[in-house]
Amino acid sequence: MTKPYASLSPAELKQELDALKAQYKVYQNKDLRLNMSRGEPCPEQLDLSMGMMDVFSSEADLHCDDGTDCRNYGVLGGLEEAKQLLGSMIEVPADNIMIYGNSSLNVMYDSISRSMTHGVMGNTPWCKLDRVKFLCPVPGYDRHFAITEYFGIDMINVPMNSDGPDMDMVEGLVSSDAAIKGIWCVPKYSNPTGVTYSEETVKRFARLKPAARDFRIYWDNAYSVHHLYEHRQAYLIEILAECKRAGNPDLVYKFTSTSKISFPGSGIAAIATSHNNLEDIRRQFAIQTIGHDKVNQLRHVRFFKDLNGIREHMRKHADILRPKFEAVEAIFSEDLGDCGVGEWTNPLGGYFISFEAMPGTAQAIVRRCKNVGVELTGAGATYPYHQDPHDSNIRIAPSYPSLEDLKTAARIFTLSVRIESINKLLETV
Amino acid sequence: MTKPYASLSPAELKQELDALKAQYKVYQNKDLRLNMSRGEPCPEQLDLSMGMMDVFSSEADLHCDDGTDCRNYGVLGGLEEAKQLLGSMIEVPADNIMIYGNSSLNVMYDSISRSMTHGVMGNTPWCKLDRVKFLCPVPGYDRHFAITEYFGIDMINVPMNSDGPDMDMVEGLVSSDAAIKGIWCVPKYSNPTGVTYSEETVKRFARLKPAARDFRIYWDNAYSVHHLYEHRQAYLIEILAECKRAGNPDLVYKFTSTSKISFPGSGIAAIATSHNNLEDIRRQFAIQTIGHDKVNQLRHVRFFKDLNGIREHMRKHADILRPKFEAVEAIFSEDLGDCGVGEWTNPLGGYFISFEAMPGTAQAIVRRCKNVGVELTGAGATYPYHQDPHDSNIRIAPSYPSLEDLKTAARIFTLSVRIESINKLLETV
Repeated sequence: MTKPYASLSPAELKQELDALKAQYKVYQNKDLRLNMSRGEPCPEQLDLSMGMMDVFSSEADLHCDDGTDCRNYGVLGGLEEAKQLLGSMIEVPADNIMIYGNSSLNVMYDSISRSMTHGVMGNTPWCKLDRVKFLCPVPGYDRHFAITEYFGIDMINVPMNSDGPDMDMVEGLVSSDAAIKGIWCVPKYSNPTGVTYSEETVKRFARLKPAARDFRIYWDNAYSVHHLYEHRQAYLIEILAECKRAGNPDLVYKFTSTSKISFPGSGIAAIATSHNNLEDIRRQFAIQTIGHDKVNQLRHVRFFKDLNGIREHMRKHADILRPKFEAVEAIFSEDLGDCGVGEWTNPLGGYFISFEAMPGTAQAIVRRCKNVGVELTGAGATYPYHQDPHDSNIRIAPSYPSLEDLKTAARIFTLSVRIESINKLLETV
Repeated sequence: MTKPYASLSPAELKQELDALKAQYKVYQNKDLRLNMSRGEPCPEQLDLSMGMMDVFSSEADLHCDDGTDCRNYGVLGGLEEAKQLLGSMIEVPADNIMIYGNSSLNVMYDSISRSMTHGVMGNTPWCKLDRVKFLCPVPGYDRHFAITEYFGIDMINVPMNSDGPDMDMVEGLVSSDAAIKGIWCVPKYSNPTGVTYSEETVKRFARLKPAARDFRIYWDNAYSVHHLYEHRQAYLIEILAECKRAGNPDLVYKFTSTSKISFPGSGIAAIATSHNNLEDIRRQFAIQTIGHDKVNQLRHVRFFKDLNGIREHMRKHADILRPKFEAVEAIFSEDLGDCGVGEWTNPLGGYFISFEAMPGTAQAIVRRCKNVGVELTGAGATYPYHQDPHDSNIRIAPSYPSLEDLKTAARIFTLSVRIESINKLLETV
């Protein structure tokens, strides 16, 4: 079938549907269990970091450069060398960084929670306000939206374009509504669209004139070094420096972690921001903890050594991930290229492919995949409140399954897309 | 000088003072730097856990018993075997436990923070209330008080007796004032008094009838296995079971960690509580994180194996700590036994000796020690708002300095106590 479905007659559509359903039936008896729902590294990727387990032995010296015994309490905010390592990775001076525990999501949660109870740099705690709003570029990261939803923060959708969020809308809203306190951003290889914000977008972010003095950009730089290609890398300009240059030094909280670099649950996370913001955050930090896991910080420093060490390591990740992304792309092109019933991204990095199905079919597609054992991120998950207004966006996470499983899953996915698209077209006949 | 100072004439006191000041002067030229301020393990104690660094190599299998790859994301609430290990340590079933990151202080902070923003089991979030109060047995742990102070929670002092807090007062206040939402407890080898709550005290705790439905006992079981003596151990009855028996199953949050068992900054922490409370907490937990460091959980399980492994390990800690506590006790007895100007505890476990100086002298003693290079916990730190109403309590932390340094520090301390006691006695002549 090479013609766009929209140009087919109902009879032709039904004929195609019968053929597709016959193919689908084959999978129903296979008892498959394939998971493309979360951005989890696969076992081969995890194996890349097993050398971390050899970094220390019982004979090791666990003192860091300044003489601190990393086994004991203390050193709030992290080891100097860990700050330098993560700083070099996200292009921020070490003294703009605080190191946390194993999860940047937790750092973001803590940032919102602190703003709720204690406010931002002397401003009214959000829990004392009638209303707090966040801008949410969509489709976006479900766990970001879950945090703001949990705290009762109103979420406003902002469309994502190919160069980042719709900045006209962002500027208009942020400058006019003092209840808007933040915006969630994944500026590089965005989750799920794979978009990297353009230089102009970042510059416009840095020059926002928020009505709220406690407005902050939540800049989740999760995929800063997560390229798929050696010589086709997206470039993102560094926002802290740009904010400083624009006279808005305190405008941004930047988050990062090694979660998809070393071990996802056992990495180190950090926040990077201005000295004013750091001082504000430290007041809480000093109450919350005596310090995070320094042995693990030192382990990361000794294993990766420097930015080049991280880059070499990320090349190995890319060698595993690239064929997976390319396999999905090839199958999508082959199976869907002519049907005109969906569009998808071909990202240069990150962990996701974003699929735009025909409006009103995403939930049915996800359900149909699930019925033969292929788990996808729930339809709607990429939107605040799980409400995709067009019921069209599906996030594909190709990292975890083996290449063979992934190919099967991708075939089932395209089949489900085609079936549900025809169902939708026949509905409207 | 063998007579109590209070029985000496002013002339005798002045003579004694001159002699003591001459001794003190000797230390002024020594440029000492001795630290008895925090309950930090000493390097020899940290060395006991270096075997943890050999538990895994790059050849290791990092799957846990249920087949989970501990290197990847997930397993909210911790590995089953980690729950079992910590559960056995604090005498609680594994399914009453959630494992967190490296710090039980952080778990306590999160518990208060969650109660502020989301309330406890459906009750009004504390940030929406005019007033929230906590009971604080005194002297107590400064970092507990810092958390409640940070959240603007009013703190009410409750005297500590030799069998725990004054339970008449606790019962009276808790049952009559719905603004009282919690009480901070270190029930075993209490910080700083070394007191272990008696069976009667725990039973009365379990039978509290709080006016507030969201009242919880914050049971910081930090020193559950931290005995100094093999055959003179304090016994604490298990409070979760007792609360259940008393028909108050949801009354208590129990906290623990391996901070002073393995490495202080790189251990694992946990909360133990009823299934109702866990369900309440999990709603937040699932938003806050994708899970804590499972590799480190597995490392602890493989290193300690079981409760007996922990006990054997703690015996080695005790062998290092016991001589230090005994050295301080010996010097205090020798130098102060006859003067009648101070009382101190002889704990059977934990990390602290609590010293009660003459009223109005604690700050001066701490300052005098500091002037010759001996750092103590700030006077007042063991009370909410750093306000010791009698300016008499000083917390001594003998763990960190070497035995030799500790003896010097203890001598300087007793000398400072004697000098400032005489100063105080002469003031009132």
